Amino acid sequence: MQAVTFQAPGEVRVEERPEPELLAADDAIVRVRATGVCGSDLHIFHGRVAIEPGFTIGHEYVGEVVAAGDHVRSVAVGDRVLGCFQTACGTCSFCRRGLFHKCDESRTFGHGVALGALQGTQADLALVPRANLTLRRVPANLSDDVALFAGDVAGTGYHAIASAGVRAGDTVAVLGLGPVGLMAVQAARVAGAAQVLAIDTVVDRLAMAERFGAQGVHLTEADPRAAVKAATEGRGVDVCVDAVGDPRALELAIRLTGRCGVVSVIGVYAERCEVHMGLVWIKALQLRTGHANVIAHLDAVLALLACGRLDPAPLVTHHMPLADAPEAYALYDRREALKIVLTP
Amino acid sequence: MQAVTFQAPGEVRVEERPEPELLAADDAIVRVRATGVCGSDLHIFHGRVAIEPGFTIGHEYVGEVVAAGDHVRSVAVGDRVLGCFQTACGTCSFCRRGLFHKCDESRTFGHGVALGALQGTQADLALVPRANLTLRRVPANLSDDVALFAGDVAGTGYHAIASAGVRAGDTVAVLGLGPVGLMAVQAARVAGAAQVLAIDTVVDRLAMAERFGAQGVHLTEADPRAAVKAATEGRGVDVCVDAVGDPRALELAIRLTGRCGVVSVIGVYAERCEVHMGLVWIKALQLRTGHANVIAHLDAVLALLACGRLDPAPLVTHHMPLADAPEAYALYDRREALKIVLTP
Amino acid sequence: MQAVTFQAPGEVRVEERPEPELLAADDAIVRVRATGVCGSDLHIFHGRVAIEPGFTIGHEYVGEVVAAGDHVRSVAVGDRVLGCFQTACGTCSFCRRGLFHKCDESRTFGHGVALGALQGTQADLALVPRANLTLRRVPANLSDDVALFAGDVAGTGYHAIASAGVRAGDTVAVLGLGPVGLMAVQAARVAGAAQVLAIDTVVDRLAMAERFGAQGVHLTEADPRAAVKAATEGRGVDVCVDAVGDPRALELAIRLTGRCGVVSVIGVYAERCEVHMGLVWIKALQLRTGHANVIAHLDAVLALLACGRLDPAPLVTHHMPLADAPEAYALYDRREALKIVLTP
Amino acid sequence: MQAVTFQAPGEVRVEERPEPELLAADDAIVRVRATGVCGSDLHIFHGRVAIEPGFTIGHEYVGEVVAAGDHVRSVAVGDRVLGCFQTACGTCSFCRRGLFHKCDESRTFGHGVALGALQGTQADLALVPRANLTLRRVPANLSDDVALFAGDVAGTGYHAIASAGVRAGDTVAVLGLGPVGLMAVQAARVAGAAQVLAIDTVVDRLAMAERFGAQGVHLTEADPRAAVKAATEGRGVDVCVDAVGDPRALELAIRLTGRCGVVSVIGVYAERCEVHMGLVWIKALQLRTGHANVIAHLDAVLALLACGRLDPAPLVTHHMPLADAPEAYALYDRREALKIVLTP
Repeated sequence: MQAVTFQAPGEVRVEERPEPELLAADDAIVRVRATGVCGSDLHIFHGRVAIEPGFTIGHEYVGEVVAAGDHVRSVAVGDRVLGCFQTACGTCSFCRRGLFHKCDESRTFGHGVALGALQGTQADLALVPRANLTLRRVPANLSDDVALFAGDVAGTGYHAIASAGVRAGDTVAVLGLGPVGLMAVQAARVAGAAQVLAIDTVVDRLAMAERFGAQGVHLTEADPRAAVKAATEGRGVDVCVDAVGDPRALELAIRLTGRCGVVSVIGVYAERCEVHMGLVWIKALQLRTGHANVIAHLDAVLALLACGRLDPAPLVTHHMPLADAPEAYALYDRREALKIVLTP
Repeated sequence: MQAVTFQAPGEVRVEERPEPELLAADDAIVRVRATGVCGSDLHIFHGRVAIEPGFTIGHEYVGEVVAAGDHVRSVAVGDRVLGCFQTACGTCSFCRRGLFHKCDESRTFGHGVALGALQGTQADLALVPRANLTLRRVPANLSDDVALFAGDVAGTGYHAIASAGVRAGDTVAVLGLGPVGLMAVQAARVAGAAQVLAIDTVVDRLAMAERFGAQGVHLTEADPRAAVKAATEGRGVDVCVDAVGDPRALELAIRLTGRCGVVSVIGVYAERCEVHMGLVWIKALQLRTGHANVIAHLDAVLALLACGRLDPAPLVTHHMPLADAPEAYALYDRREALKIVLTP
Repeated sequence: MQAVTFQAPGEVRVEERPEPELLAADDAIVRVRATGVCGSDLHIFHGRVAIEPGFTIGHEYVGEVVAAGDHVRSVAVGDRVLGCFQTACGTCSFCRRGLFHKCDESRTFGHGVALGALQGTQADLALVPRANLTLRRVPANLSDDVALFAGDVAGTGYHAIASAGVRAGDTVAVLGLGPVGLMAVQAARVAGAAQVLAIDTVVDRLAMAERFGAQGVHLTEADPRAAVKAATEGRGVDVCVDAVGDPRALELAIRLTGRCGVVSVIGVYAERCEVHMGLVWIKALQLRTGHANVIAHLDAVLALLACGRLDPAPLVTHHMPLADAPEAYALYDRREALKIVLTP
Repeated sequence: MQAVTFQAPGEVRVEERPEPELLAADDAIVRVRATGVCGSDLHIFHGRVAIEPGFTIGHEYVGEVVAAGDHVRSVAVGDRVLGCFQTACGTCSFCRRGLFHKCDESRTFGHGVALGALQGTQADLALVPRANLTLRRVPANLSDDVALFAGDVAGTGYHAIASAGVRAGDTVAVLGLGPVGLMAVQAARVAGAAQVLAIDTVVDRLAMAERFGAQGVHLTEADPRAAVKAATEGRGVDVCVDAVGDPRALELAIRLTGRCGVVSVIGVYAERCEVHMGLVWIKALQLRTGHANVIAHLDAVLALLACGRLDPAPLVTHHMPLADAPEAYALYDRREALKIVLTP
């Protein structure tokens, strides 16, 4: 089969790879119909996340089940399904508490040996372990494009809001309007935010956030702190989502958030950095961090996609054949696309 | 001043009453601009809630502060304000936990001596104790009609949903589409319900619920249990609001709710009744009950009214002068009105 | 092998039954070392829960794994293990939310075809499906007697308290001091209850509750309502556990609980009954109901048993060989035992 | 009257000050019976918290009400009372959500003009504003020494645990065994922690923590990370309290805490510092921060003091007359005392 593989920093290739086979009774094999290119793929492309040359990448996908082990009950051969970017065992002490994203045996698609040696989904076929927890039938009225978001970007935006405990009537700020930030804007509105301030430097993304019901605030040409003060009678927001993952974003998030508020850090941090703990402490803030528990959110996210209250369709800017993956990565790397969907 | 007083079951009168005076340092006096007629007023009108003849009734109001004690800080003379249907002390063990609706010293407007001997708001002027907790400035963009709902009906609909812990993606059913039920429909949507099933026998109310984003289900001409099954793959709703207050409604709510779901009983119960505890128990349901904690919800409700996500305006079917109160009560009693606003 | 089987109301028999065999890759077979007789077994014995004659009963057990399917990872052959009274699939929509007790595919040991056709544990050997979720290694310092409680009675007492949200400093009442009520007394103390009032008519059980840190209150010879008033300055308890399952217990629980408190109904209800909804509503009570989610609580309960903060050892009043099961049931039926442990 | 005043870094003086007078209707005046010296007082003593020379210091106190304004209802003249280290208005948007510690109009005793210009309690008499929220009668069975802790140190230890959501069965680590850390150890046990690891370098404090039920771990002579691994099968603690307020403590707390755990930062941070956000994020930790909401916790803490489950008595190492305050501060500064109680 054809698959997109990492070769070296800045180089991916579409090459022939052996077809996957069922290895365990709860494995499934999915013929991929659509697979996304994600910001995390770009980290691999840039060599910042080290994986083995020749490893198949990609972790967002919708497809059709073509084989399933004896223990697979949640889906059947022939079903159109969506999957999550990672798997979970369902029985370890973390899974038993619903913390599937921190499962003892979690594996992430397309992230090399270090994250579970699970070949990626930018391929004709994908082997999906733990299918009962990870795969779900796609509701008939959802397009492949929309369903694709459930197991990664939409679930991540939902997580940023849900894990922060946003309540109806709150004011929320979202820093960084990439796909995750834009879905967090939608999720904040869905959760009842009376006001959402969406902050970025890209005019098109600010405009899209406004279409999603937010007040767009340009990071440098406007004054986010003044905008938040005006919107909250000086109190600061109840929840600020850091969808950037940069110490300057975290600093701003801490400043925008009101006393006893929550800073929801969905953007990736990988190192030590300076944090204004004095401000955090005097405001009695909470920091909630980490990547999303998409398996836990999957039912809710699917219900919201099915009724249209979450709608990632406007984020898809490009469709390209899988064979053009190298061009897709180059284009994405030049920030010319918001979401590219590859079709095998 | 003129005031609407209870005289006898079925009889209210507009009569001259002495103007109120400040009695405590945290009292305020409000010149009423608009005051609603509520379902609870009808209980008094019917004699089911016994109050003293000559007592001024009414508890929904918007007005202007004309006098304020030394300790009043939250509002000032000249402010356009809204108030809550009850007062709270702010310092007892219940208030300290934010349970203002069960305050040791709570008093309810217009409900006679038994509920605190606080004259009602269907009058030219109203004395408002504990003004700091109970009164709030009306945002400039809110009409009197809309602001009127914050301290009672909208707060109650919000409470029915918030106290049940509705989460984004849930399916919610609302039984009974009076003003509280209709506001619960809106509040459920605001809180992120993917589906809201609104159940009643009155076609106009079902139509209004549909305009608010619900699926209307006629109680007797359609089949609510079948509708819920179809909407939830047989699982039942996550939360069912009983906005009726009748054992048959409670029975239906219990049947419509899925395992581990919540029945949110905002409708009034005053006596013993038969409950299918076997069904409650085997489903592991939670029952949340009691009248609304509107003081606690006031900030959130005002924020949602101000941004238009909660919008009670369509519920106001009648405006009448205070002098026509007897006619208003007769009309409301004949169920010809959804919400009547009286203007002194 | 030998097994205790139901024959007819009032009659159990120890008879030869075929040894179980592994049927699925996540099955295990456990050689039983100790198995308890529980109140639910008595319901079967009395014919109130109808099961097939010849069906093996019992659902509390500790034993040694003698066979395990390929997918069993949480335990291994040779391990001393404890199990839960029911199984769960780990992947349905309820399990994904951690609501294992309401799993779509849950099966209960020793409760006949209606509850999953799973032969009971009062036998030499037991087949345990879904072993990864249901079985856990017994910490070395726990006796079989104590470990036996984790998967049923101790987990149930823990659930009654945890699901009610008891907080450090609360006052808790427990109605009914059978094994579950007594464990709820311990769990309330562990969760930080400043005061626990334990109510029953059996003097020995009141005395045991006092040894566990409660204030014993005789249901009829003392005055529970007066005792609660005295303990709470008239406010009522924060949480009242109904560990009886009788409308009179529920009525008392409702009366003992303070405004905005929680009635935790762990006692079994199977039918309609009269409930004082007027009192429930005016107090704004919450009712939490249903049987325990012991799988979810298993880690916490084991940690508390291992450190001795939960200690069910005093509840074991009798040890008997499995062969004497008929005598054990008769004795338990005469209420002469608190907990009988049978040894195959 | 006599009062302890700040003069210059390293110098406090007992001098004659004018007696306070009632200024508002909800003020009370308390004749101080006992007042503690706290770590925060030492910050003032060291000049790290700048206050005006001549300002009366101290904020922990028990005393007798000798005068009360017309609006004071919670206590009466003649009552033995305890107070909190800060006041709150009870009606601002923070107070309405129960976040009294972040009240818009909060004032802290003995912290100079910047924190509300409220003279301290290390004096014969103290003026107490907002007495209804801040003062509480001392239960008859509580000594002044013990009651003194309710409004500051015990409430702070309770907050560190309660705000972190410790559940029965959790494993908790506490870094720093000053009075707050030691009370956090007690509070963790009360909240049901199955294991508490208490970490410090002072052998006496480790020994006291062990008497309170913890496992003492010497910070440098033992290996805290190895101890936590051994106690948790390598998973890390569920909650780690940083009762130090130093970047090295925070780093250790982050390392000791397991995936999805909570770092409860009760130690004071005043500046920027380096934080290992990479580790925080990959573990999906929560940080909860800020000083304690003692007003909110007061009822629970008093109930736990009254029943003896929280017992700060062992922490009181010195009693001295108010006149010896300069000596007391010197002694405390040399770390020769854990808690000094001054008696006017």
